[in-house]
Amino acid sequence: MSIEQRETLDAILRQSAFPAGSDVNEQRRLLRALLSSQPLPPEITVTAGTLGGVATAEITVDGIEGRHVVLYFHGGVYVMGDAFLAADLASQVARRADATAISVDYRLAPEHPYPAAVDDALAAYETLLRDGVAPSDIVFAGESAGGGLAIATLINARDRGLPLPAAAFVMSPYVDLTLAGTTMETRRDADPLLSPEALQARVPDYTAGHDAALGLISPVFADLSGLPPLIIQAGTHEVLLDDAVRLAQRAVAADVEVTLDITPGVPHVFQAYHAILDEGAAALDRAGRLLSAHLAAAETVTAE
Amino acid sequence: MSIEQRETLDAILRQSAFPAGSDVNEQRRLLRALLSSQPLPPEITVTAGTLGGVATAEITVDGIEGRHVVLYFHGGVYVMGDAFLAADLASQVARRADATAISVDYRLAPEHPYPAAVDDALAAYETLLRDGVAPSDIVFAGESAGGGLAIATLINARDRGLPLPAAAFVMSPYVDLTLAGTTMETRRDADPLLSPEALQARVPDYTAGHDAALGLISPVFADLSGLPPLIIQAGTHEVLLDDAVRLAQRAVAADVEVTLDITPGVPHVFQAYHAILDEGAAALDRAGRLLSAHLAAAETVTAE
Repeated sequence: MSIEQRETLDAILRQSAFPAGSDVNEQRRLLRALLSSQPLPPEITVTAGTLGGVATAEITVDGIEGRHVVLYFHGGVYVMGDAFLAADLASQVARRADATAISVDYRLAPEHPYPAAVDDALAAYETLLRDGVAPSDIVFAGESAGGGLAIATLINARDRGLPLPAAAFVMSPYVDLTLAGTTMETRRDADPLLSPEALQARVPDYTAGHDAALGLISPVFADLSGLPPLIIQAGTHEVLLDDAVRLAQRAVAADVEVTLDITPGVPHVFQAYHAILDEGAAALDRAGRLLSAHLAAAETVTAE
Repeated sequence: MSIEQRETLDAILRQSAFPAGSDVNEQRRLLRALLSSQPLPPEITVTAGTLGGVATAEITVDGIEGRHVVLYFHGGVYVMGDAFLAADLASQVARRADATAISVDYRLAPEHPYPAAVDDALAAYETLLRDGVAPSDIVFAGESAGGGLAIATLINARDRGLPLPAAAFVMSPYVDLTLAGTTMETRRDADPLLSPEALQARVPDYTAGHDAALGLISPVFADLSGLPPLIIQAGTHEVLLDDAVRLAQRAVAADVEVTLDITPGVPHVFQAYHAILDEGAAALDRAGRLLSAHLAAAETVTAE
């Protein structure tokens, strides 16, 4: 319980809300300002790298040297954000899964529309496997569009016959670029950051003439059978809430192991504010326990 | 992973499936035979009691003497089962929440149709509060119809202005007696135990002329706002899967904290088979951790 924390965060985010009419460079600047305001903890080291020709940020946590890897996909509606800005949140997931994180700096729209992000994400994962990392030692994680990209990459990898990671953890996933979720309207006033208009303004940057309902653009419409366990978190103060709920529903219908974990009264990707919001740290703790269990279980199966 | 365990359990349950045409006494006998086959562990003590004039089974686990109480509601489509037959499953929840369990022996239909069960459940909870147990030390739990009754009792308590328990944990909840869930058809073949016909045959016993869509009979149609955190588990091999998914969806829409936890390939109330099914024990472990966290959090709030 942290009513005061939630209200403070709400006020901060309302000041940072993306003006629907602003251009992509202004929005990139605003997001950078929002995410750079918290310094990285001293025990985190971030190093530039590449995977399959795709730029990455490799994030290590002092004291964690195991073989688990979190392959991380940042958010930003496919047009902003970057692998380094996501380092704090990626490291929070990694430390709780006793893992290092590799944050993928996939190409962004409008300069590089679909399928550039999907191609980069798959190339990074394929290279990780080719480098000898066991799929049972990998989990995917991502926030917002990065959550959508994580799911799209699972679908893509499955369809190409690649072995799949042990699990995926998605925070406030943006999985429907047709914006058909019921909460686009019902959570409009509650959402301090996003609006259907602000989202819609950026959709064509990424889809660039493709059908927004394609499974690799909007995984909520894809066949999700065969996917590994999914951990899906969202807050109720976000227009993307129904994306999370429908993704869970769709995965359950495909016989996928699913944990849908909804925290009331908190905004889009509330886990990013773990330092000032108890609910954020608690949600990361819950996800970390599930990820650790899946990594351990996958090892058991591999060892058999 | 326990494909062999799952297949064995499936075969056992298919032999125990309720014949849709059989009478209520035959079905009561079959359920008793199914649930009595496992002896109680030696560290469990079950004592007959009463709460507010309602019969109960008080279940203690050796070594647990704290003040947490699991108020437990057994399953059996409101016409069969009893508080004592549920003692093993209730004790499994209680030991993981560091609690004692009180299993409510609510009256059964057709002898005692709606609202007898709802009245008994509320009377038991009210008496527990009147006896001085803090609501922050109580969680509700239940399986199948008992899961539905747990949710109905939360609604009922909220509407009467009673303080609510710290959380509720429902396993394969039966929350729609209109049987409108999509999985009534899509999981018909996968479900080894229940069918829409078998369920339908017993609905009038309980509704007895009332509208099956009433909120206290089918909580999936009720306003769920103000409810405490809900932990909802189900398997994908059950016709009631969609009850769990829709309950989560409805609770999320009402700003309730929700964990929907779906295990693929396992049947109705698979947690009952924890001794022979790894997924059952693992699901109980996850629920226990969440219940413990909610009991601890509620204590913090109370102490402030």
